[in-house]
Amino acid sequence: MATKKTAKKKASSRATKMVYFFGGEKADGNGTQKALLGGKGANLAEMALIGLPVPAGFTITTEVCTHYYENGRKWPSDLQNQIEKNIKKTEAVMGAKFGDLENPLLLSVRSGARESMPGMMDTILNLGINDDVVEALASKANDESFAYDSYRRFLQMYGEVVMGVEQKASEHHDPFEAILDKAKAKEKVENDSELSVAALKDIVAQFKKLIKTRTGKDFPQDPMAQLRGAVDAVFSSWQNDRAKVYRQKYGIPAEWGTAVNVQAMVFGNTGKTSGTGVAFTRDPATGENVFYGEYLIDAQGEDVVAGVRTPKQVKQMAKDLPSSHKQLLKIRKVLESHFKDVQDIEFTIEKGKLWMLQTRNGKRTGFAAVNIAVDMVNEKLISKETALQRIPAEDLSHLLSPIFDGPEEKKAKKVGSGLPAGPGAASGQIYFTAEAAVAAAAKGQKVILTRQETSPEDLRGMIAAEGILTTRGGASSHAALVARQMGKICVCGAHDMTVDYSKKTLTGGGVTLKEGDFLSLNGFVGSIYAGELKTAPSQVIQALLEGNAAAKRSQSYKKYDQLIKWADQYRKLGVRTNSDTPGQVKNAIAFGAEGIGLTRTEHMFFEGNRIDAVRQMILAEDNAGRAKALKKLLPYQKKDFTGIFEALDGRPATIRLLDPPLHEFIGTMTSQQIKELAKKLKVSPAFINRRINELHEENPMLGHRGCRLGIVYPEITKMQATAILEAAVEVGKKAKNKPQPEIMVPLVAYAKELELQKAVIDEAAAEVRLKYGLKKSELKYQVGTMIEIPRAALTANEVAEHAQFFSFGTNDLTQTGLGLSRDDSSSFLPAYQDAEVVNNNPFSQLDQTGVGQLVEIGVEKGRSAKPKLKVGICGEHGGDPESVKFCHRTGLNYVSCSPFRIPIAKLAAAQAALEDAPAPKKKATKKKTVAKKKTATKKKTARKK
Amino acid sequence: MATKKTAKKKASSRATKMVYFFGGEKADGNGTQKALLGGKGANLAEMALIGLPVPAGFTITTEVCTHYYENGRKWPSDLQNQIEKNIKKTEAVMGAKFGDLENPLLLSVRSGARESMPGMMDTILNLGINDDVVEALASKANDESFAYDSYRRFLQMYGEVVMGVEQKASEHHDPFEAILDKAKAKEKVENDSELSVAALKDIVAQFKKLIKTRTGKDFPQDPMAQLRGAVDAVFSSWQNDRAKVYRQKYGIPAEWGTAVNVQAMVFGNTGKTSGTGVAFTRDPATGENVFYGEYLIDAQGEDVVAGVRTPKQVKQMAKDLPSSHKQLLKIRKVLESHFKDVQDIEFTIEKGKLWMLQTRNGKRTGFAAVNIAVDMVNEKLISKETALQRIPAEDLSHLLSPIFDGPEEKKAKKVGSGLPAGPGAASGQIYFTAEAAVAAAAKGQKVILTRQETSPEDLRGMIAAEGILTTRGGASSHAALVARQMGKICVCGAHDMTVDYSKKTLTGGGVTLKEGDFLSLNGFVGSIYAGELKTAPSQVIQALLEGNAAAKRSQSYKKYDQLIKWADQYRKLGVRTNSDTPGQVKNAIAFGAEGIGLTRTEHMFFEGNRIDAVRQMILAEDNAGRAKALKKLLPYQKKDFTGIFEALDGRPATIRLLDPPLHEFIGTMTSQQIKELAKKLKVSPAFINRRINELHEENPMLGHRGCRLGIVYPEITKMQATAILEAAVEVGKKAKNKPQPEIMVPLVAYAKELELQKAVIDEAAAEVRLKYGLKKSELKYQVGTMIEIPRAALTANEVAEHAQFFSFGTNDLTQTGLGLSRDDSSSFLPAYQDAEVVNNNPFSQLDQTGVGQLVEIGVEKGRSAKPKLKVGICGEHGGDPESVKFCHRTGLNYVSCSPFRIPIAKLAAAQAALEDAPAPKKKATKKKTVAKKKTATKKKTARKK
Repeated sequence: MATKKTAKKKASSRATKMVYFFGGEKADGNGTQKALLGGKGANLAEMALIGLPVPAGFTITTEVCTHYYENGRKWPSDLQNQIEKNIKKTEAVMGAKFGDLENPLLLSVRSGARESMPGMMDTILNLGINDDVVEALASKANDESFAYDSYRRFLQMYGEVVMGVEQKASEHHDPFEAILDKAKAKEKVENDSELSVAALKDIVAQFKKLIKTRTGKDFPQDPMAQLRGAVDAVFSSWQNDRAKVYRQKYGIPAEWGTAVNVQAMVFGNTGKTSGTGVAFTRDPATGENVFYGEYLIDAQGEDVVAGVRTPKQVKQMAKDLPSSHKQLLKIRKVLESHFKDVQDIEFTIEKGKLWMLQTRNGKRTGFAAVNIAVDMVNEKLISKETALQRIPAEDLSHLLSPIFDGPEEKKAKKVGSGLPAGPGAASGQIYFTAEAAVAAAAKGQKVILTRQETSPEDLRGMIAAEGILTTRGGASSHAALVARQMGKICVCGAHDMTVDYSKKTLTGGGVTLKEGDFLSLNGFVGSIYAGELKTAPSQVIQALLEGNAAAKRSQSYKKYDQLIKWADQYRKLGVRTNSDTPGQVKNAIAFGAEGIGLTRTEHMFFEGNRIDAVRQMILAEDNAGRAKALKKLLPYQKKDFTGIFEALDGRPATIRLLDPPLHEFIGTMTSQQIKELAKKLKVSPAFINRRINELHEENPMLGHRGCRLGIVYPEITKMQATAILEAAVEVGKKAKNKPQPEIMVPLVAYAKELELQKAVIDEAAAEVRLKYGLKKSELKYQVGTMIEIPRAALTANEVAEHAQFFSFGTNDLTQTGLGLSRDDSSSFLPAYQDAEVVNNNPFSQLDQTGVGQLVEIGVEKGRSAKPKLKVGICGEHGGDPESVKFCHRTGLNYVSCSPFRIPIAKLAAAQAALEDAPAPKKKATKKKTVAKKKTATKKKTARKK
Repeated sequence: MATKKTAKKKASSRATKMVYFFGGEKADGNGTQKALLGGKGANLAEMALIGLPVPAGFTITTEVCTHYYENGRKWPSDLQNQIEKNIKKTEAVMGAKFGDLENPLLLSVRSGARESMPGMMDTILNLGINDDVVEALASKANDESFAYDSYRRFLQMYGEVVMGVEQKASEHHDPFEAILDKAKAKEKVENDSELSVAALKDIVAQFKKLIKTRTGKDFPQDPMAQLRGAVDAVFSSWQNDRAKVYRQKYGIPAEWGTAVNVQAMVFGNTGKTSGTGVAFTRDPATGENVFYGEYLIDAQGEDVVAGVRTPKQVKQMAKDLPSSHKQLLKIRKVLESHFKDVQDIEFTIEKGKLWMLQTRNGKRTGFAAVNIAVDMVNEKLISKETALQRIPAEDLSHLLSPIFDGPEEKKAKKVGSGLPAGPGAASGQIYFTAEAAVAAAAKGQKVILTRQETSPEDLRGMIAAEGILTTRGGASSHAALVARQMGKICVCGAHDMTVDYSKKTLTGGGVTLKEGDFLSLNGFVGSIYAGELKTAPSQVIQALLEGNAAAKRSQSYKKYDQLIKWADQYRKLGVRTNSDTPGQVKNAIAFGAEGIGLTRTEHMFFEGNRIDAVRQMILAEDNAGRAKALKKLLPYQKKDFTGIFEALDGRPATIRLLDPPLHEFIGTMTSQQIKELAKKLKVSPAFINRRINELHEENPMLGHRGCRLGIVYPEITKMQATAILEAAVEVGKKAKNKPQPEIMVPLVAYAKELELQKAVIDEAAAEVRLKYGLKKSELKYQVGTMIEIPRAALTANEVAEHAQFFSFGTNDLTQTGLGLSRDDSSSFLPAYQDAEVVNNNPFSQLDQTGVGQLVEIGVEKGRSAKPKLKVGICGEHGGDPESVKFCHRTGLNYVSCSPFRIPIAKLAAAQAALEDAPAPKKKATKKKTVAKKKTATKKKTARKK
């Protein structure tokens, strides 16, 4: 709220600077001001400052956008004035005048949020043309065709984006396109560029008429009115559906708002010495250190990104436009050494002169992120710290995703190939629209979204798909860009294949596939296969879990391994695993787990025919019957724990006592199973049914479970404690590194519960010592609790009196803290995300504002009673990067997560530790730095345990 | 914890005073030290100090008891030494010596906790006799029979209580009683007192043998060893089952411990000028200002309480023992003017000399409590403040309990009469054992526990019963005492009736009733009727709700009315009602409600055939279908609100929007109902079944309910808001006092939820204004939220930005805060109470330690954003006195409860306000006083709204 208010106040004050100029090697802002100027605006300023050729212009700040939404979509009073002043400056640098009838300046108007949201918001080009200016433009360029082509492009964009002309349900085509198509048909030409001037003039007239008919308003001839409309449209596009979906997916707050960049137009569509392109300073799919990009001769920028014309590789520019190519190669180096990162650039060449339109840090796959970061450290371009901080921790999951099984891929029917835009292997059923893809995914199908090209409207379908295939567009097309960012497997521009939307078919290699048929994509090399191919583990997995020597020699594994080693150097948080079997534990240790943070003992109850003994225990009507059944279970449990302790080789193991309501073990029986069980236990099926009914609960999540079972039936706790401790003793006899059992009592709400359960565990320990003739020091164990009930967090000082450790069970703490059942919330969480009540599913990413407070209170109060209390987290949030960082800031000792999340948790932990350090280079505001320093001081000691 | 630690530390220090002497008009302690000396010990000291004749003795503090339990039941090192010193002092005052063979001093050893727990713990009398002392006693009293009778009584008590001799399962009788019975049979006498000295000596020998055989140990001849055993036994009895049950019922913490009172024996069983009795300074059942009690000539004190011999009324003493009677009447006045309250006293007359053995504030019925308090104010004995503070708020419920319908009672078959020991009217089925009573009550029967006499073992049965009937014992018997305290209807000592345990019959008035037959008790007058009698409202109810003129003139109503007026003067908290219908609202206003704190709109959905429209709305598959159904519901809802606003006459009304999961409205349909509904709605039954399945939730409490419905289906919120506001406008047109609607959004976890719902409500308001042509100021309403999810409390500052009021929904806040489903917790809460994890059901009495923190955080954060935020509570805790006091301390503006709890809430609120005031007379420690003053300063302004 504070930020909002401040913004409001500032924006409404007369003195506030709302517009920032750039151009002519000067700029009001700079590259650090992304929050204020948006990414694009800040970097345009920065490029101007370092002397790169940037068309002059200015940026309207994000604060103005916030003001706009907080004030019924009205402009702050001084905005118009500031814009006019900056147009004057732009005119001065570019040597042309906005709306001038001799030497007119045209403008582009583009959105630019703090984080790039490619294609999500609106853009208007060629702004400033009217019926008079078009003539001036024609005579200035000495090219009437160019002038009227620009005018008709402008009219279409303005009509659609600003004035809201839409395709009607009754129309088969966009109405502007329809006019264009008619004109082409009349002149019997195929391309827009072949149209005669007369035709273009006629089109312009028709476009203006269309606008008037559809909107009831005339197209504004006043350039300044055009600009006002365009700025409003960009602001409005911040709240369009596409932008909202995108923000949800990436957790971008609606409050950020977008900046608006108004910039002098330069034209790549002015002949054979003109052109436009996009490029990456390194390969964004693999990370390879090569200049990588595409361009089109005689085209406007949007043509490249839209993927309609297939562009040329940037290396061909050496032939086509040698001097501009040379200049670009130089700029590539300047940019990387200035920004210390891979840059994603847009450029235009107007009659031989190179203009830089944009630079930003390039989005890249997880593979590329790791490769580039490690390479740049080796090139001494960046430090290890920067390398660690730069890779989104979540992206490491790309390196663990499956690939195709080699031999099988060789045998598979190849039907086409394209650009490898998103590495990995995906098999699934093809669907040709986003809607169909979403529907199929909702039914549980794996989907390959198959399109000629994708556009922002396809976003939901791309999210739902396993993989994406396009038959048009290059590595910089929308499909490639978005897939890369999402970590989706993607092959794009498969020109040897054909999509027929009307027949719903994909044809290639002599094969025609229908909607719903299986297709497989190899996103590493761009191969496309008919059918469903088996996958194999990634190289990193093969190296780590299968000890594959070739995989260990691979660049992919080596760089991964280097990165994790760096992460281990920096992180302060321990990283443990949630694992229930010896096999899982072994994998987790291969991934670098330092112990077990959570073993769920009940999972073991379902194995083999143990469930019979469990059910016998549950159905027992007295202690004797229960004791008998528990006696049967003891050796099973002991065997489980033995395997786990052996796999751990002396690492600590937090083992949670029985947690779920007993009903879960008997509620799911079929009547046949009930009959059989009744026979085994010598009771009637009616009796079993009665017990099932008795144990039924309205809200089992809040029912008789967790330690509530152990309080009512202490004999269960005792059996489990005995099994754990006997296993520890027996493994310990043979092993060099003794097991470190940590027995965890679940669902504690009252300190007394833990006290009572601890007494039972201690009693079991005394008996185990007696049985094996051990001294007290010869059987060590800890007793602690899960903090997963708000009351336990709020009274953590009392609970800590009886605990040697806490582990935050944030799954249940989220359920209780938000009053939200994980199982039931799926029916309304999507609506909640649409309404922006929540940005993330709180079961995936910890709700730091709410549930996080309970964690903070729990840690603070727990340590107030026991300063050295060991505290961890074992909810699924333990593998979510943002949540891991929160755990670091809150002073936890460790996080625990599933084996495959361990690398991610390690990297996030290292990043959190680095965020703690006083960071001179970062763009943090002064206030933030102070806050962070404070936190850092708190936790100077390493707390990996 | 702090208290425990302090106690431990003190008790283990050598310097700590563990034993407090009293006697000879002197005392170490005084009446204010109940926490340390127990109630009995503190008052013995106080009586000694004000010059009353108290047998000398000493009190071992409760801190020693705490030490005893914290140190494996061992004595602190200095205790023996301090006891010995105090025995010397006792000897000096009483002129006799413990264990002396000439002039032996005998001792009684009794428990005495901070609060009286009658009959729950153990007592040993006549301690100090051994084979030699008995002879000295005989010669001192010149009565061998008395000496050996005392010895055999002592042996039996000591054998049972200290040495643990028990009746075996194979025995039909207590083994001591069996020996006694045999001796009486041999001598052919009926009463113990008729036994010859020879027989008594033989009994003594047999008793000693019995102890040796059963325990393997000799009865200790050393008086000091006897004393040590007795003290241990009293400490141990603090943890016996009876005591635990009692503590649970009355919420007494186990940490308090008991003191032990060791006192010189005086003997009421030493002839016709001796006697013993118990009395109240006023009638504890009705409150009438008369000396009220019973005594027995030639008896020991336990005989009166046990109810075996029927005692005489105390006024008869004027004839039997005139001088002692006169002295007692004087003491009655001294005690009342000293203690400013009704006293419950025990006395013994030994050969003409009166000794006071105990005084304590008398337990009384709710009727008596109100009468006495108001009378004492009128007598200028106490202040209004004291009167208000003295009455347990809960006891006001006695005054609201039903009575018998007059005419019907006259026609009923009277089968007996007894002492009216617990006022009120009860009908139920008779059961003769506590077990049977508990079992029948568990089945939902109303039970009259019918016994010859009750003992502490019957406590569970008494708790389960509606009424209690005994055929023996007087108004001071166990049954009367406990019933009075529990507010149970009780008739005791119905000598004209006979209970036959073996046949399970109750006979009287020529009628024999069997187990399970109906019986009715009039506890006002002591009448007993066969069959089930209709009940009528109490006088207070008749006066308030029926406007009955005679009832209004009754003392009972007048004093009630006076008391509530005083409460209204002092309380700071507003008191509102939870009411869903105009009828309920009218009742609540008659009880003094100041508005509605909670109207549950969904209750209205079940009335008549509205449920069809509700179901139609739920089954709708699109907005149009839902809108149609909602349109049908609107007039119903509007009518409901109209009635409520009319009944309120301008008082504020908090109306909660739809809360329960939609499944609740359709999940309970039978297949027939489904068929019918399908027909009505023109859909298939299969469709309805599918929707029912879709809407089913695993944990509906945490599912799609509350504002989550309104977020997904804003049209529901809009319909409800429209109905509320239209009703408010239409009622307001005719009424002088305009309705004050307060629309409450339930189950908010995120501020954004409230923001969105408020927008819908505001939109509805705008439309209502338009419809009725009103200006903004002409339709006023507030929008607020229930705080019932921990996250809402933790982020209350954000939530408050959109709220005009908060109401704590402590039912759900308890469920989420404790992770405990109200519906499911009954299966293990009893075990939790047994294990002393919880003292009270957290759904009845707010868990102040845990859930209370969420309330405190919510209030603090809410007011940090909006200092004048109106805050109330509408969970059921709003009618629980302790919870009401908590609400006062936390600074709430009002509590809300069901209509019948309003008087209780008002009294509790007044008490809370009085507790705030700097109280010079109270025993609060310095620390507490400071804390309370702080709170008081915070809330200087009255906050009734």
